[in-house]
Amino acid sequence: MGKVYLIGAGPGDPQLMTLKAARALGLADVVLVDALVNRGCLAHARSDARVIEVGKRAGGGASQAFIEKVMIQTAKNGHTVARLKGGDSFVFGRGGEELQALLDGGIEVEVIPGITAGIGVPAMLGIPVTHRDFAHGVTLVTGHGAAVDWRALVRSGTTLVIYMGVRNLEAIKRALKAAGMDPATPACIIENGTLPAQRQMVGRLGRLSGAGFHGPALIVVGAVVGLAREVTEHRAKAA
Amino acid sequence: MGKVYLIGAGPGDPQLMTLKAARALGLADVVLVDALVNRGCLAHARSDARVIEVGKRAGGGASQAFIEKVMIQTAKNGHTVARLKGGDSFVFGRGGEELQALLDGGIEVEVIPGITAGIGVPAMLGIPVTHRDFAHGVTLVTGHGAAVDWRALVRSGTTLVIYMGVRNLEAIKRALKAAGMDPATPACIIENGTLPAQRQMVGRLGRLSGAGFHGPALIVVGAVVGLAREVTEHRAKAA
Repeated sequence: MGKVYLIGAGPGDPQLMTLKAARALGLADVVLVDALVNRGCLAHARSDARVIEVGKRAGGGASQAFIEKVMIQTAKNGHTVARLKGGDSFVFGRGGEELQALLDGGIEVEVIPGITAGIGVPAMLGIPVTHRDFAHGVTLVTGHGAAVDWRALVRSGTTLVIYMGVRNLEAIKRALKAAGMDPATPACIIENGTLPAQRQMVGRLGRLSGAGFHGPALIVVGAVVGLAREVTEHRAKAA
Repeated sequence: MGKVYLIGAGPGDPQLMTLKAARALGLADVVLVDALVNRGCLAHARSDARVIEVGKRAGGGASQAFIEKVMIQTAKNGHTVARLKGGDSFVFGRGGEELQALLDGGIEVEVIPGITAGIGVPAMLGIPVTHRDFAHGVTLVTGHGAAVDWRALVRSGTTLVIYMGVRNLEAIKRALKAAGMDPATPACIIENGTLPAQRQMVGRLGRLSGAGFHGPALIVVGAVVGLAREVTEHRAKAA
């Protein structure tokens, strides 16, 4: 029997993978990789490893059932599998579903967490998602249609980090305003965070616009965004 | 002029440090390390690096002003400084304050994020902090006296991850119950997560007890805790 490593590759820059993730990749016979994972991460895989692209970007990609079946069958055939996802598998990554399927299939699994984009990416702009003077907590949510209680989130006073929300930005802005949030609240959009292609707009919630952002992007809303500063950035080289 | 790396060492296991963090540690002339950082992380520092323990555990340790002064002075003397903190510096780590002080002091800073315990530690029990069927978001808060609006957090429906809350567990339980949370909600305490000394109690919120937990611990509350399963764990060797 083989085994499956469920690995979070981190927010983008391959250097933000963990030592443990790099080591597990080097053990794998088969690597299943999502579209959002920077290909530089695969430098740690063996040269004879089979790499299967299972990305769902642009509507294509393999089905969840197919991915789980391939992992189970490959492990049952005695091979070591690395399942590599962007960020952390357990934060909007369907890692929980894959873990359940694998364990139900009798497969040995090791979970290797990664840095989730919602925390690691704002750091590139010098934005601490919590700060004693500004926010005693942080909430990570998705912005693509889930039934988010924006009123409760505004009331919570936590920094809001919204994944996959740029296409719904106008609706989110309306919902936050209706929930009592001041449109002058500092806010930003960060696209391709930690990568050479990183781009951002930093300003006020009411004036934030998603125009021109087409890649994977985060929205961060809260007083801490006002701390964004010119930090010396050493982003990943193109991979 | 030298430079300062603000580095998150991750949740405990030194193998959960990033490649970038390990590389930056190897560049440092001086390493300032917090009490909660596993000493195995220092294996990446140069053998001739000066290591300064600035931990605040047990009431002792260096003051924040002293830490900032040492970093600024050391960098001004032309040395490279690595400031190593547990988890991520920008999640309840005062990294934001240190970044401000350093930039105000004219020092070049590079921020290297780490895996925050609140996400990486539950993963060791197979708990995904978000899951399409159970929680569309996650909130990280502190439980040691900050003015948390528990009612708003319960309403938000997000998984709650509470840092530094075990000593206030009974008050937190009362506040969550008063806010309408079902005492049968799955919940757990995890101490020394990702380390060989990891211990946990998994059960229901109403029956959770902090007795016997004395180390750094997290509380996780939400339906996703019901997914905790026997995951093959390969924890760090004692460092």
